[in-house]
Amino acid sequence: MKMERGLELVSRLSRPNEAKILLIILDGLGGLYHPEFGGKTELQYANLPHLDRFVQHKRTVTGLIYPVRRGIIPGSGPGHLGLFGYDPLFYNVGRGALEAAVFLKHGEISGDDIVARFNFCTVDENRIVTDRRAGRLTNGAEFALLLNKEIPEIKGTKVKVISTKEHRGVFVIKNRVKLNPNITYTDPEEVGEKILEAKPISIAKLVGGTGDESESRAAEQTAKLVNIYTSKALEVLKNRKPANGIIFRGFSTFPNLPQFNTVYSVNAAAIATHPLYKGIAQLVGMTVLGEPTNFEEEVKILNENYDGFDFFFLHYKDPDSRGEDKDFLGKVKALEYFDNLLSRIISKDKKEFDAGKFKFDVIAITGDHSTPSYIGTHTHHSVPLAIYSDFMKGFDTTEHFDEAECTRGILGRILGVELMTILLANGKKLRKFEGFV
Amino acid sequence: MKMERGLELVSRLSRPNEAKILLIILDGLGGLYHPEFGGKTELQYANLPHLDRFVQHKRTVTGLIYPVRRGIIPGSGPGHLGLFGYDPLFYNVGRGALEAAVFLKHGEISGDDIVARFNFCTVDENRIVTDRRAGRLTNGAEFALLLNKEIPEIKGTKVKVISTKEHRGVFVIKNRVKLNPNITYTDPEEVGEKILEAKPISIAKLVGGTGDESESRAAEQTAKLVNIYTSKALEVLKNRKPANGIIFRGFSTFPNLPQFNTVYSVNAAAIATHPLYKGIAQLVGMTVLGEPTNFEEEVKILNENYDGFDFFFLHYKDPDSRGEDKDFLGKVKALEYFDNLLSRIISKDKKEFDAGKFKFDVIAITGDHSTPSYIGTHTHHSVPLAIYSDFMKGFDTTEHFDEAECTRGILGRILGVELMTILLANGKKLRKFEGFV
Repeated sequence: MKMERGLELVSRLSRPNEAKILLIILDGLGGLYHPEFGGKTELQYANLPHLDRFVQHKRTVTGLIYPVRRGIIPGSGPGHLGLFGYDPLFYNVGRGALEAAVFLKHGEISGDDIVARFNFCTVDENRIVTDRRAGRLTNGAEFALLLNKEIPEIKGTKVKVISTKEHRGVFVIKNRVKLNPNITYTDPEEVGEKILEAKPISIAKLVGGTGDESESRAAEQTAKLVNIYTSKALEVLKNRKPANGIIFRGFSTFPNLPQFNTVYSVNAAAIATHPLYKGIAQLVGMTVLGEPTNFEEEVKILNENYDGFDFFFLHYKDPDSRGEDKDFLGKVKALEYFDNLLSRIISKDKKEFDAGKFKFDVIAITGDHSTPSYIGTHTHHSVPLAIYSDFMKGFDTTEHFDEAECTRGILGRILGVELMTILLANGKKLRKFEGFV
Repeated sequence: MKMERGLELVSRLSRPNEAKILLIILDGLGGLYHPEFGGKTELQYANLPHLDRFVQHKRTVTGLIYPVRRGIIPGSGPGHLGLFGYDPLFYNVGRGALEAAVFLKHGEISGDDIVARFNFCTVDENRIVTDRRAGRLTNGAEFALLLNKEIPEIKGTKVKVISTKEHRGVFVIKNRVKLNPNITYTDPEEVGEKILEAKPISIAKLVGGTGDESESRAAEQTAKLVNIYTSKALEVLKNRKPANGIIFRGFSTFPNLPQFNTVYSVNAAAIATHPLYKGIAQLVGMTVLGEPTNFEEEVKILNENYDGFDFFFLHYKDPDSRGEDKDFLGKVKALEYFDNLLSRIISKDKKEFDAGKFKFDVIAITGDHSTPSYIGTHTHHSVPLAIYSDFMKGFDTTEHFDEAECTRGILGRILGVELMTILLANGKKLRKFEGFV
């Protein structure tokens, strides 16, 4: 596959050095005015003394970032890919591949498999979904074990379900050669609707072409397989509770992404609690560190591994979760919690932090999208961004890290795909561009 | 034809809803300092109390837009295409097709025809053009009738002239199959010059390729046809006044543009007085409403059709016309005239307007290019832009809608192709982007 031209450029210019870069992604960071809280956003409302001090640093500048494009609401995959410098309009990663990627590390899935996200669900006798999450069941692993025992293959093609969290899991189809993941969801995405039949999608036709016969046939085979699996699973789970059905979405193969360390000449580590973010990091070839279960453990892992890497992606999930819950004060609290840990994240100790001394050469703090608690979903709005580096021009007058003040930040508005280049440049990890040779 | 990737993305994400979007294009809106008027631009000089109130609205933000690209002077076609989200560097619409498109609606022209813009002109006995507009003749239709009667075809290929306004018209060549529009103008574009011979252009050679033999031959055939037509027309019109000649430019075929309503999941209407703007709207598949002869009639049509559509493109021609006339005060007056109608355009009544209540969910006011009256032509300068939506973060401190204040607007600088995505996002007409599939 051809490399996207901007990534190719950076890839040709990157060079290794000792500089350390820290990219902190506060999931769903951006907010929106909330009428019940004085028309303020969560960042405006929160008490964030450490972030204030960070953005007030002479060598810190701020701005706003559009992780994918202006107006586009980033899903977690495209949002992170954009921030990692992989243009999400060029590099396509299916939802299934994102969810499943974390299992590549442990060898449970191979890079050639077709994967999909699944939910255990509750259905009535007419296949009508009455609960898409089967009561957020806690023993998904048992149900998975049962299905894997009873339905190990469909017409000679090996299949497997892997339970991840609650009702969620990853469906794996081996033997990709004769199959094709371009099929529709069986998940109706609403309760009261029947489980759908999977059908082949002609991607070529969607974009105005005529399509490839063999691909269409392969997608048809895949759809058939999925429909047979669904029927068999309904049979196996018939008398079970709370899950007596299974629904699929996001059928995909694993993309062959350019590898982060090679492209950027770094040795990158990723720290996150959730499989999805670990998966994205895994797909671009970062080393995924540890098994933290909360953000404080993440910070500990970061500090323990400080010497071993020169690029760190640190992911903090809570602002997004509270935003999706429409919990304004919860999101405020999550931000204040982060703020309180900031000196431990970016400085050796509190004293050094207070003196404006950081242990990374380049530090970026931003989000993969906005999740305003006033709205409760991902939105298209730009996301606040702050970058520290001793190599920064400065001139920034931002006093507080929020959506309003960042509109006046000297970075202006940038796209997600521009971020990595800026970070590398500030880490002096890029050579002069004399032309493509 | 493949879709431009950004448009394809929006196309896959768009979803219909009840939200109504109004896009007002003030043709040639942007201005430049005028030394004779205190160094002010027309927008700065004008008294625009309603526009002021509009941009001061808490949920209105401003910025600057480059309809095509920074530094590029937009023609009307590319300028509008850009604002409609069709990258003018990807989607090419010939001048002839733009002028002729409005006749597609009435079936006078078919989508397979080759078309060109023509002028009736005055020539001397040596084919030297003495007046490119034949004294802006008023009875063009009579001349067209005569030509169509005397020259219905050339070597078996049907041809036709359609008089539009004054000396202007559209030339139509049927039977496109063996023909190709890549030929040079016969219009010398200056008086005192001879009518030119049409010649084939090798587009492929222009861009460094080798070219396609059959296309070159087809263009040669087309050029021959046009040259024969020119000679015959000169013969037919020999003793006529004021027009005794005809000159052509902008030979083109109709592009197969993705259709606006399908791409954006809207039901779009266009309201304009001039054929060119109706034509562009027609080409992208908007419903062109009524036959307004002035802007007040346009506003009436807008209000009458409020219920029937959820996207409106409202075009106001006068700022451009006065700008091209180098009439500073005329352009100021045109802007003040618009300002005075604003409450009738965007609110139910004056009272609602004064209360900051608008009857559209998203309102954008901008231009397709700048036409500073100090210069008298289209220029490359960015164009002021204001967007209202309840979904806006706000934080904008713009007090007056003009070139200077918009430089500080929180939208920053955007490209024309970004506008539609922003409008749809604010109308909540886009789904989250999880990847292409």
